[in-house]
Amino acid sequence: MAITVVGSVAFDSIETPAGKRERCLGGAATYFSLAASYFTNVRVIAVVGEDFGKRQEAVFEARGIDTRGIERAKGKSFFWEGSYMDDLNQAKTHITDLNVFASFEPKIPEVYGDSEFLFLANIDPVLQRRVREAMPKARLVAGDTMNYWIKDHKPALLEVLKGLDILLINDTEVRMLAGKDNLVQAARAVLAMGPSSLVVKHGEYGATLFHGAAAKGEPQKQTFRAPALPLDEVVDPTGAGDSFAGGFFGYLASQPEITAAAYRNAMFYGSVMGSFACERFGTERMQQLSREEIDQRFELFRELTHLD
Amino acid sequence: MAITVVGSVAFDSIETPAGKRERCLGGAATYFSLAASYFTNVRVIAVVGEDFGKRQEAVFEARGIDTRGIERAKGKSFFWEGSYMDDLNQAKTHITDLNVFASFEPKIPEVYGDSEFLFLANIDPVLQRRVREAMPKARLVAGDTMNYWIKDHKPALLEVLKGLDILLINDTEVRMLAGKDNLVQAARAVLAMGPSSLVVKHGEYGATLFHGAAAKGEPQKQTFRAPALPLDEVVDPTGAGDSFAGGFFGYLASQPEITAAAYRNAMFYGSVMGSFACERFGTERMQQLSREEIDQRFELFRELTHLD
Repeated sequence: MAITVVGSVAFDSIETPAGKRERCLGGAATYFSLAASYFTNVRVIAVVGEDFGKRQEAVFEARGIDTRGIERAKGKSFFWEGSYMDDLNQAKTHITDLNVFASFEPKIPEVYGDSEFLFLANIDPVLQRRVREAMPKARLVAGDTMNYWIKDHKPALLEVLKGLDILLINDTEVRMLAGKDNLVQAARAVLAMGPSSLVVKHGEYGATLFHGAAAKGEPQKQTFRAPALPLDEVVDPTGAGDSFAGGFFGYLASQPEITAAAYRNAMFYGSVMGSFACERFGTERMQQLSREEIDQRFELFRELTHLD
Repeated sequence: MAITVVGSVAFDSIETPAGKRERCLGGAATYFSLAASYFTNVRVIAVVGEDFGKRQEAVFEARGIDTRGIERAKGKSFFWEGSYMDDLNQAKTHITDLNVFASFEPKIPEVYGDSEFLFLANIDPVLQRRVREAMPKARLVAGDTMNYWIKDHKPALLEVLKGLDILLINDTEVRMLAGKDNLVQAARAVLAMGPSSLVVKHGEYGATLFHGAAAKGEPQKQTFRAPALPLDEVVDPTGAGDSFAGGFFGYLASQPEITAAAYRNAMFYGSVMGSFACERFGTERMQQLSREEIDQRFELFRELTHLD
């Protein structure tokens, strides 16, 4: 089943202990759609500037991603510059230039209208809600957000959460959103805000899936933990969370039925794609995978944590 | 097979967001031996003061733990006072009174001499080494340490590591000991110091087992991750790491053969005992378990992370 994703397509300048890259292709929607493209058809809604050229376009095309929803606007694309010199788990932002993204008005191509899966990447919750409402055929809607929206745009974010099936956020964000330090209590509070499932990403320690009581007819209400792969070298953690989301949601969208077992496998595929993302700068690794490599790593993850 | 453990038996005054307890029974050897006692016979080597009475003694007796190696000295027992008001993952120490522990000279009862399993809890590495040398029949030796010994007593600690089969420490400690930030690189460096296996405890995120290349005839060289149980309320994290060690090593000692599968199960049993420890103040929960409860929780852990 096709996924439509709305979010940022950007240029990133990144410095990590492993080196430096200037203006590589980045953005949440980019990482998400590349990761998800190994599992299902992906359609992107975004806005880019005049600096987005054939080379960037080709990255999406090579993975068969539908870019008809990427609007070309006058000006420059979203630009982010950051470093991870002190702590690979925490980016230090040096520059955020929203550029054409500042006045982003998502335009949804008619051909996207039949998408049954919708991913609302981390953007203004007002826009997330607008896209969700414009896609009534979406039967499974997942989304991400960040501390900025939680802190300063909570009412709009709460409206989005009401229409969300799955929220994917990190430890700090779930605690901030719930106002609770204990992870389980925080998860329960967030599930009460609307989403029937919550995925909390723990960076190098994996991720936890919490199901709400009313999990859309799903009997599986249990908590599930997927490990992260201990990596010998984290070259660049940028986009690992978005790649997790792409693997997770891409796998779900590829399944004939969204069962409890599908959710569990999806958590592992999310971790798999997150681990690949860290191995090279920017989207380099996400561009060059094969489904075989992905499934081999899936087996490595199973080995990593299975008893029998 | 019997385990001999050497370490602290103490009194702890603890404050957490869940409440306060004055002078409860504590100490690494206490938590370790209570946890391990559900799997195998345990013998303790420690020193206590005149404040250690029948009530404390009874806690060990009720679990069938051999206390003939607990020396009674003139003075007071080791006393620790700490709180976890700001962060349940990090104790804030208010008072550490070594008392009789300051001049601890481990005396090993002759009847302990045939112990094939030895656990060196977190004490002065000079004493750890002395006990190890006095127990030549121990064929599997595990140990713990802490930042203080890593920072200020490294040469003595490195001597201990040479004679250790399994080292159990936490994230911060492994990074400090190796002088490396990356977990995998740090683990490799520590395994090169002597132990054939390394267990790194990640608190609420579980634990990772790394095997060295020369894993005592074991073919299993892979990394293994055990999850932690997301707990609704952490009443008191004191002793969770020592309880993990007790569950882990107690299970290993109970097995007819130390196989790769045994190591994996041991990691889960460690996590199980660590999760119980947090549910009540001090050793309360560790005193009142049944093997049935433990195995039920083991199944819960399996469910938590298994795909099939």
